[in-house]
Amino acid sequence: MPARSTAAPAPDRYPYPVARIGIIGGGQLGRMLVRAAKQLGCTCVVLDPTPNSPAAQVAGQQIVAHCHDATALRQLAEMCDLTTFDLENIDSAILRQLSDEGCPIFPSPDVLAVIQDKLRQKELLAAAGIPTAEFVALDQPDAARCAEFGYPLVQKARVGGYDGHGVVVMHTAADFAKHLPVPALIERFIKADKELAVMVARGRCGETRCYPVVEMQMHRATNMLDLLLAPARVTDAIAAAATQLAVRTVEALDGVGVFGIELFLTHDGQLLVNEVAPRTHNSGHYTIEACFTDQFEQHLRAITGLPLGATDLLMPAAMINLLGAADHSGRPVVNGLRAALALPGVAVHLYGKADTRPGRKMGHVTVLHPDLEQARQLAEQVRTLMTITGENAL
Amino acid sequence: MPARSTAAPAPDRYPYPVARIGIIGGGQLGRMLVRAAKQLGCTCVVLDPTPNSPAAQVAGQQIVAHCHDATALRQLAEMCDLTTFDLENIDSAILRQLSDEGCPIFPSPDVLAVIQDKLRQKELLAAAGIPTAEFVALDQPDAARCAEFGYPLVQKARVGGYDGHGVVVMHTAADFAKHLPVPALIERFIKADKELAVMVARGRCGETRCYPVVEMQMHRATNMLDLLLAPARVTDAIAAAATQLAVRTVEALDGVGVFGIELFLTHDGQLLVNEVAPRTHNSGHYTIEACFTDQFEQHLRAITGLPLGATDLLMPAAMINLLGAADHSGRPVVNGLRAALALPGVAVHLYGKADTRPGRKMGHVTVLHPDLEQARQLAEQVRTLMTITGENAL
Repeated sequence: MPARSTAAPAPDRYPYPVARIGIIGGGQLGRMLVRAAKQLGCTCVVLDPTPNSPAAQVAGQQIVAHCHDATALRQLAEMCDLTTFDLENIDSAILRQLSDEGCPIFPSPDVLAVIQDKLRQKELLAAAGIPTAEFVALDQPDAARCAEFGYPLVQKARVGGYDGHGVVVMHTAADFAKHLPVPALIERFIKADKELAVMVARGRCGETRCYPVVEMQMHRATNMLDLLLAPARVTDAIAAAATQLAVRTVEALDGVGVFGIELFLTHDGQLLVNEVAPRTHNSGHYTIEACFTDQFEQHLRAITGLPLGATDLLMPAAMINLLGAADHSGRPVVNGLRAALALPGVAVHLYGKADTRPGRKMGHVTVLHPDLEQARQLAEQVRTLMTITGENAL
Repeated sequence: MPARSTAAPAPDRYPYPVARIGIIGGGQLGRMLVRAAKQLGCTCVVLDPTPNSPAAQVAGQQIVAHCHDATALRQLAEMCDLTTFDLENIDSAILRQLSDEGCPIFPSPDVLAVIQDKLRQKELLAAAGIPTAEFVALDQPDAARCAEFGYPLVQKARVGGYDGHGVVVMHTAADFAKHLPVPALIERFIKADKELAVMVARGRCGETRCYPVVEMQMHRATNMLDLLLAPARVTDAIAAAATQLAVRTVEALDGVGVFGIELFLTHDGQLLVNEVAPRTHNSGHYTIEACFTDQFEQHLRAITGLPLGATDLLMPAAMINLLGAADHSGRPVVNGLRAALALPGVAVHLYGKADTRPGRKMGHVTVLHPDLEQARQLAEQVRTLMTITGENAL
């Protein structure tokens, strides 16, 4: 399925495979994307440095190379009808070159480049009139500049951050000692009442579909997603406003594919866009069980030019991540699986990673229940029952 | 995860992978089983004569061999913790030998052997007091015997039938000319008001879970499943009776795993067990979208000794098969995919088969809708929109 930028609609006729999808990054997002792709009659090739990566285990075809390897990226793009990615840490200049040469890449390398640089990302949002936490650039660590901006503040590395890495909260000037020695931005520390997220799918003709607004409870120490509740426990008015902001954000980026928009809801009811993920998102995993069309199939539909699917919630859901236990590494050991699966409405997803590490995302669990509070309690119960340890104690 | 027949409960601790699953047969049932297995942290090896079979495309590992190849079956069983199958046409004597040597195989080769032989199957059901259509053995074609039994009748080959093959309906003595020249049984032709099915999961300790009773509309000419409605449009009393019969059937077989029990509902409200599939079943595909735990994960839970999952229906569903169009073969061409996906609540599953043939199962479509009649209408609409043709016109 080559890019169809011509005006004439393509015939609704797909010689098998429906599309050959190249996926840069072979982690859990890629793995779940492959699953959806195969169901829709696509084939997949994964590019990832780790042989037998989680995505390659289901794709069946992997180019073993780093995501900055120009030759490998070219090989991938040329052997597939469409290329996409499951992580942001890719050399977007190489992708732009390939795109300029006619290889369809979604989301576009330009969108990726903007999102990779948190300063450019915030500048674009600000220019589009989308509310975010107040910010200024901080090209290099500068105590005076921070003091002038005022504490508490958050320093964010412009590039390379993920899952709480690349972010430092400074409550007072004393915390400046914790600064990151990299080009960064500083922004107002927001004492959020809730952190929300909206998954937005945007198709190749600009049509959009939004998933329900969800509530993310972050782990205090790691700032990783700790508990996800769908739908968010907010008023309809706030949900509608969050959805509208999320759509405006993806439209401002001119993004194609699925995007995860994270928002703060402040104590005084203000919504601020926090960050944008140009891909499927941890906060959307629950859609596999809980929605008509899950975020992975939706991403595929969006990038291949197929119609977007229904995003309605079939049933409230709660989700937790299964993280590698502290003090363990090596071959993973899944503990408490039987106990967890004995609870009603529990779906366990394990990612097939060959090694565990402290805090590594090894799987997730979604719980469906007609009552969200019951779903939450069951998810918390699973958290106490299930652990991922490793064969080596550190 | 070796067979645990000892009395002491195994620890709830699974070094990765949770289990290595061997799957005899690499068709669509195996493909969907692999998908569930990978999600649960299992790895899979598929045995199938066709290289790159639908299941192998997601399993990543295939032994290319026929399902009667003793050496290959042994290789599969010995490299896996557990072996199961996605079709009945396997040499059960070889499986019994492997089982006797300590290779865990579920369902057991004895159950498979009974089900492979439709006469033994019916004799076992009759002995267990389970109502079926009246029948007698017909070792060889015998017009006098058929006349004595009385028309209309159905001749069923004892072994090797599937999807309407191996079955001949004889309305009058003139139809005897259509007889199958093989060992068979003849049974009373039942003018069913409805054909129903119940998927039953039975675990290694005998615990059972049933999916909702569903309604199968069969194609008049091919006798293949044409439209599936979940739940069946029957009274609660009939649903309860059908469920009870289905459980009794699986218990009579002492089956472990998921079983598909097909039943006739006669004009006078009688329920008769028609056939038993010792595996996941076409009539259970809708569970992927419509139920908490789908039939494939449920089968895995059952055979690995994990707790059975909830079988509740999240939403009514209708399902149709996507069959290879008449007069076409070769590389499949999917027509009408965009049109079908534009309808709400439509999930398309394509099986990755390299070649189409007239009537071959190439995929299926499930439609969810809060109103079953709406789901049915949408499924019928998809049927008119989607076709699977081939690059060669026959």
